[in-house]
Amino acid sequence: MSRLIKKRSQKKGLSPGSLVFVGTKKTPRVQISVISYNQEKVEEKNLKDITEAFPFKKSPEITWLNVEGLHETEIINKIGEYCKIHPLILEDALNTDQRPKIEIFDDYIFIVLKMLNFEENKSKIISNQVSLILGKDFVISLDEGPSNVFDPLIERIKKRVGRIRDRGPDYLTYAIMDIITDYYFMILEEIGEKIEIFEKSLLFEQKSNILNEIYGLKREVLFLRKAIWPFRDSINKLKKSESSLIKKKTLPYLEDLYDHTIQIIDIVETARDLLSGMLDLYLSNTSNRMNEVMKVLTIIATIFIPLTFIAGIYGMNFSFMPELSWSFGYFAVLGLMFLVAGAMIVYFKKKRWL
Amino acid sequence: MSRLIKKRSQKKGLSPGSLVFVGTKKTPRVQISVISYNQEKVEEKNLKDITEAFPFKKSPEITWLNVEGLHETEIINKIGEYCKIHPLILEDALNTDQRPKIEIFDDYIFIVLKMLNFEENKSKIISNQVSLILGKDFVISLDEGPSNVFDPLIERIKKRVGRIRDRGPDYLTYAIMDIITDYYFMILEEIGEKIEIFEKSLLFEQKSNILNEIYGLKREVLFLRKAIWPFRDSINKLKKSESSLIKKKTLPYLEDLYDHTIQIIDIVETARDLLSGMLDLYLSNTSNRMNEVMKVLTIIATIFIPLTFIAGIYGMNFSFMPELSWSFGYFAVLGLMFLVAGAMIVYFKKKRWL
Amino acid sequence: MSRLIKKRSQKKGLSPGSLVFVGTKKTPRVQISVISYNQEKVEEKNLKDITEAFPFKKSPEITWLNVEGLHETEIINKIGEYCKIHPLILEDALNTDQRPKIEIFDDYIFIVLKMLNFEENKSKIISNQVSLILGKDFVISLDEGPSNVFDPLIERIKKRVGRIRDRGPDYLTYAIMDIITDYYFMILEEIGEKIEIFEKSLLFEQKSNILNEIYGLKREVLFLRKAIWPFRDSINKLKKSESSLIKKKTLPYLEDLYDHTIQIIDIVETARDLLSGMLDLYLSNTSNRMNEVMKVLTIIATIFIPLTFIAGIYGMNFSFMPELSWSFGYFAVLGLMFLVAGAMIVYFKKKRWL
Amino acid sequence: MSRLIKKRSQKKGLSPGSLVFVGTKKTPRVQISVISYNQEKVEEKNLKDITEAFPFKKSPEITWLNVEGLHETEIINKIGEYCKIHPLILEDALNTDQRPKIEIFDDYIFIVLKMLNFEENKSKIISNQVSLILGKDFVISLDEGPSNVFDPLIERIKKRVGRIRDRGPDYLTYAIMDIITDYYFMILEEIGEKIEIFEKSLLFEQKSNILNEIYGLKREVLFLRKAIWPFRDSINKLKKSESSLIKKKTLPYLEDLYDHTIQIIDIVETARDLLSGMLDLYLSNTSNRMNEVMKVLTIIATIFIPLTFIAGIYGMNFSFMPELSWSFGYFAVLGLMFLVAGAMIVYFKKKRWL
Amino acid sequence: MSRLIKKRSQKKGLSPGSLVFVGTKKTPRVQISVISYNQEKVEEKNLKDITEAFPFKKSPEITWLNVEGLHETEIINKIGEYCKIHPLILEDALNTDQRPKIEIFDDYIFIVLKMLNFEENKSKIISNQVSLILGKDFVISLDEGPSNVFDPLIERIKKRVGRIRDRGPDYLTYAIMDIITDYYFMILEEIGEKIEIFEKSLLFEQKSNILNEIYGLKREVLFLRKAIWPFRDSINKLKKSESSLIKKKTLPYLEDLYDHTIQIIDIVETARDLLSGMLDLYLSNTSNRMNEVMKVLTIIATIFIPLTFIAGIYGMNFSFMPELSWSFGYFAVLGLMFLVAGAMIVYFKKKRWL
Repeated sequence: MSRLIKKRSQKKGLSPGSLVFVGTKKTPRVQISVISYNQEKVEEKNLKDITEAFPFKKSPEITWLNVEGLHETEIINKIGEYCKIHPLILEDALNTDQRPKIEIFDDYIFIVLKMLNFEENKSKIISNQVSLILGKDFVISLDEGPSNVFDPLIERIKKRVGRIRDRGPDYLTYAIMDIITDYYFMILEEIGEKIEIFEKSLLFEQKSNILNEIYGLKREVLFLRKAIWPFRDSINKLKKSESSLIKKKTLPYLEDLYDHTIQIIDIVETARDLLSGMLDLYLSNTSNRMNEVMKVLTIIATIFIPLTFIAGIYGMNFSFMPELSWSFGYFAVLGLMFLVAGAMIVYFKKKRWL
Repeated sequence: MSRLIKKRSQKKGLSPGSLVFVGTKKTPRVQISVISYNQEKVEEKNLKDITEAFPFKKSPEITWLNVEGLHETEIINKIGEYCKIHPLILEDALNTDQRPKIEIFDDYIFIVLKMLNFEENKSKIISNQVSLILGKDFVISLDEGPSNVFDPLIERIKKRVGRIRDRGPDYLTYAIMDIITDYYFMILEEIGEKIEIFEKSLLFEQKSNILNEIYGLKREVLFLRKAIWPFRDSINKLKKSESSLIKKKTLPYLEDLYDHTIQIIDIVETARDLLSGMLDLYLSNTSNRMNEVMKVLTIIATIFIPLTFIAGIYGMNFSFMPELSWSFGYFAVLGLMFLVAGAMIVYFKKKRWL
Repeated sequence: MSRLIKKRSQKKGLSPGSLVFVGTKKTPRVQISVISYNQEKVEEKNLKDITEAFPFKKSPEITWLNVEGLHETEIINKIGEYCKIHPLILEDALNTDQRPKIEIFDDYIFIVLKMLNFEENKSKIISNQVSLILGKDFVISLDEGPSNVFDPLIERIKKRVGRIRDRGPDYLTYAIMDIITDYYFMILEEIGEKIEIFEKSLLFEQKSNILNEIYGLKREVLFLRKAIWPFRDSINKLKKSESSLIKKKTLPYLEDLYDHTIQIIDIVETARDLLSGMLDLYLSNTSNRMNEVMKVLTIIATIFIPLTFIAGIYGMNFSFMPELSWSFGYFAVLGLMFLVAGAMIVYFKKKRWL
Repeated sequence: MSRLIKKRSQKKGLSPGSLVFVGTKKTPRVQISVISYNQEKVEEKNLKDITEAFPFKKSPEITWLNVEGLHETEIINKIGEYCKIHPLILEDALNTDQRPKIEIFDDYIFIVLKMLNFEENKSKIISNQVSLILGKDFVISLDEGPSNVFDPLIERIKKRVGRIRDRGPDYLTYAIMDIITDYYFMILEEIGEKIEIFEKSLLFEQKSNILNEIYGLKREVLFLRKAIWPFRDSINKLKKSESSLIKKKTLPYLEDLYDHTIQIIDIVETARDLLSGMLDLYLSNTSNRMNEVMKVLTIIATIFIPLTFIAGIYGMNFSFMPELSWSFGYFAVLGLMFLVAGAMIVYFKKKRWL
Repeated sequence: MSRLIKKRSQKKGLSPGSLVFVGTKKTPRVQISVISYNQEKVEEKNLKDITEAFPFKKSPEITWLNVEGLHETEIINKIGEYCKIHPLILEDALNTDQRPKIEIFDDYIFIVLKMLNFEENKSKIISNQVSLILGKDFVISLDEGPSNVFDPLIERIKKRVGRIRDRGPDYLTYAIMDIITDYYFMILEEIGEKIEIFEKSLLFEQKSNILNEIYGLKREVLFLRKAIWPFRDSINKLKKSESSLIKKKTLPYLEDLYDHTIQIIDIVETARDLLSGMLDLYLSNTSNRMNEVMKVLTIIATIFIPLTFIAGIYGMNFSFMPELSWSFGYFAVLGLMFLVAGAMIVYFKKKRWL
């Protein structure tokens, strides 16, 4: 399947709001877990059936429902019905080709994010779509595939590190987005190191496959860019939304997150410029070096071609060739050859080709 | 006829509002069909004459009048007179070189869209102009050529799938635009797959005709881009219009459609960037490979040229050439040749040209 | 004179508002004509002296005064004095290097337009400046040179085709601008056809002068672009002006005209992109084809150079060369040559240079 | 000194508002002149000391104080003290590396302009900074070096040409800016002519130094561009300022000036595009022509290399070479050579390389 | 460590607001100094412990606390607690990878700046982050490493030069930012001189390593650009903030600073354009010169190849070659060679390759 766009043609002509999973099945079994907490207590539970989650939602504690794997549309459907989510929103959560966005309703806020990470060999960025639904006292996270990204956050909730237990679901939503942003920075560190390596190898050695590598990195930066720009706009929309679901105390954190996205964009754009410059430099250097090779070699060849011609003349077998019988004919011709070669070298020097 | 612009010169100097069909006749006979429906019943009919459609319009049901083929301007004229459409609007519907746009009046909304599809061999996008006129209880669609694009929609109306029978003509208009957007996604899937194929063949083999293919795809993306940007603006204008013809319940669907157009633009722009990068990579790779070939070959040639010159010298027929009569002259010259060749190879290695 | 800018240096240091004709004299005699019409009657007259026009202006009919040729500044001066036009406006009308613009005053609206047309051999766009002054019951058009562009419009007035006789001078102004826009479309048709031809010849044959032609077309598109962008802005300013000189009924026509200018801009930008893409493709194709030629040729040369060297060795005249007297020496050397040539071909094939 | 930025490092760490002249001393002596005029009378005087100017300022006439040469900071200091100008403003006037700008205060308006002119050999634009201080009844112009640019303006004042004597100091300020704009047009005329010449020489002959000339012109256009964009913004700010120092009657003149700056920008941008296009065309043409040369030459070389090899074979001195003793061996070999050459030519023709 | 982004991965998953120093330790010991002044008196003190600074803050004088070295997070923590700074702000101050920004609170204003300077060999820009916290009667500057940048400012405070002692902490903040801007200008002077040198060496000689140097300079300009754009936006935000911490008297100075940042941006952008143009010129010149070399050389080679072939023919050892026994065969062949060479030269001249 192409990375540019996922197979959506199965949806062509379907009624809008039909729940169809668009994407690749990244996990064999859907995993559902729920964490419920307030300032005093925490409870974590892995669920076998989605209906087990509903009692948590009724309780006054903050409930975080995390679904990993989206290919069982029935689960999503049940959540949607129980929490009264608009079918178009559910459709968006299942369409993993969504661009990051935010939609603010009276009862809930819907956020689509891209969780980015490098593949194991660090040559390709893989993208998992995470949809967040922030309600009055709950957060639902719908994750395309299984990941341990949220583990440090769950630790912080359990061990009561920082402010997370004292704050509401809006802060939890922020914390999830913050962790995803941390991964963006990690990817940029990786890219930054690669650029550093490329730059050095450009100055000191010329590997021919570096071209493909620079191009590959440029393409990855393109995909990163595609994810971060709408993410920034979403954060901006969220912090200006004046939704009652976002408490005033959380705003500085969103502001900080917004700053991070701007910083990421800044680095991404600089990385693009650097990579473009490196491509140009590589090509110029290659062509320069090639030119130099060709020049010296051609000069050598050109000096010898007339000489070989002279030798060819006196290699002819005519019965009457007066020079051949001269006693010093041979040395005269050798001398002539030296003169011709010398004259050409002088000419090349004068023209500054040597 | 050029794809850039259609023959309009026949209209030069004509009075504005004159109904002239600008475009190619894509169907021999104009086909007119009407569907009339409400929550309870559906009626579909193919008409021989446009006047048969007018009784439907008077009935309280929602009427969808679909005209395929625009070259009989008289039909359009009659519709215009009956429904009281401004002549400039009718002129726009007949000028199939229109860019997508929307015009909002008190009594009706006029929408111009481009129905895009790949040609059979999938190398060229063909474009059909579809104009929609949304009135209080009717929708008129004026289609440049015959197509079965709307068939799934008609099925949904007949079989009562989804919400379409419960909603008004604004939802029908939305549904038509949604289907057209589905085709855009389909084209992008095709383009995405082609890009994937190109990328692989760039890394592993170098076909020389790939250049023309990439360029061709780039041009198609350009035409897609030309259609989608004004389409996005039109949807935006529509959802912000506050026209009484658009019911509040339909707004989330328009919002969703707007999101789709943004997503399409996003993919189109990424496709452009990828194609540009691929072109650059192809050219750099070609030139790189060429350079390598030339380098090795030139080096080989340059080593042999001085050697051939030496052989030439001792092939001369001078009567007095002392070296020729030396017993080991031949082997001395062979040795000299080895020395020269060796020295050049050492020199090339030192200069890192080998 | 340069097409980029006209000779204005004669005006350096002059007092602002001095009437100086900047441009080339395109007609030997200034031609002045006047048309006066209302719903009932039409009168057309060619004038010898500008003062003959003034009685028409006083009459209640709509008066269209058309001056072709601007080099007699006295005429412009008289019109300005009679109609109370600001001297800076008259200066602008005489400076034929003006960019399209609009200026809205209480008593009149001043519009500068560029009438574009292809030269006879269709390789260069020529530009005539047309200034329009729209007053309460008159329109003055000041045209740089003679042209028959307005003839169809005059016909429509005389023969009462369309709405023109029933509307005011604002509609007449619109009609003039509409005709000028028709010429823009005509030029674009020409350009579109040329692009089509270029594209075909790029794929099937490679004429070397096509480069200059593409560049020339690109330059013409640049000049077209320079004229259309400010034209669009002018129309926009006019339709948003809320001037009492523009009647409400004329607004849809201006809206339509505005759409046309946007469409022209759209096509112009697409044409630019296509031409740039074609230039790139041409250059890549040329360089590709050249590379191919060079590669095969160099390979042939490189195979024969070592062979020629071997032949050279055995052409040497040393008295003691043991191989020469061997019975099968000749065939052995021929065999060696075959081996060397074969080895090189195998090497080239392995390296995929063949 | 670099043209990009002037030596400011002498100011590093100094207190803001310290008066230091940044630039080159362009005139040995500072020249101060004053013109005082109203509708009835004019008085012009060259001053030895700046204090002589102060009585003029007190008189009710309009006073224009013109200082040419800014390296004597004491003079500027005295003017500042007498007219109560903020030290930061004076600092800006002395820093001749300022970009054009305008600052509007209650008592005066401060304008920085760049007076541009070609050097004598017309290859480089030289820039003189002119600062204007417009007060209630005076104008102070601080000019970096001596120039006769304002002479026609002084003439107009003295001889009462145009409106200048009837208007206030705001009109005088406008007139000064208008003259400076006239010089911009003059420079563009020069550039336009050069472009015309370049274009012709590109099509008909290929001088290799044209590359440096086009690049040089492009750089000059860059500097012109750097001066005109902020100038336009300044005029815009001035005409929208609603300062009481700008009378309503002067506004149309500022509007006209604003139009001129837009026109200049338009021409500058077109010139840039044309120059870029010309550079591309030059490079493409050169590479095309080179390719053609190389192709034909390589083909010639390639035909002869195998032939020379054949000749080399029969030049070998083996004692047993059966062909040598054949009667028609020589002609057979000549025939073989013709065949080989013919076959290669046919092959080249088929591949369309010939 | 990469220059693009600093190692932040240690922060991944940490609670927001955790104080972690991101960057390199640039100084072994943290240095804390405090200056306290008003119109009458000055006091300067180097502190061993941060708590010594707190009594100063309580006093009515203006207190400037300068911390050089940020790796001891405990110090920052204590300052934050004492002055009641939000933990997210402290986190930003410690993250030396921040982009310039400003945050305005009721009690204090937080400013992040980049102090730029050239490395000693002037080939790389090094960047130190400086954070400023402006309170009601104090300024805290948190500097990444030790520097003597602020020394002239301290001198001015001690010696009472300029206005600094008469103004409040807002003016001190301005003065710090002004000094940092002076360094930007200094860097630009250096860049300007390098560009001047490059330009000259481009026209007169062609050093091959100039390519790497131009590329390096371009990269430095990129980093400068990355620092100055957000700096400009920060100044703009500050001067429009209407914060009570910024007194009205300081506004003209901020306006002046804003002008400086715009000027820096202007120069940076021009430098970029110049460098890009120079790269292009270099590459074109190189390729042009190379083409010329290749052309002349190839022509020489091509003339001699057919001649050598002719000599080869008459070097063949056939027993029957009639020409060999002709008396003037040798001279006839020499004549033939002259003819062939002459014909080729004429052909080349006609084709304008010579």
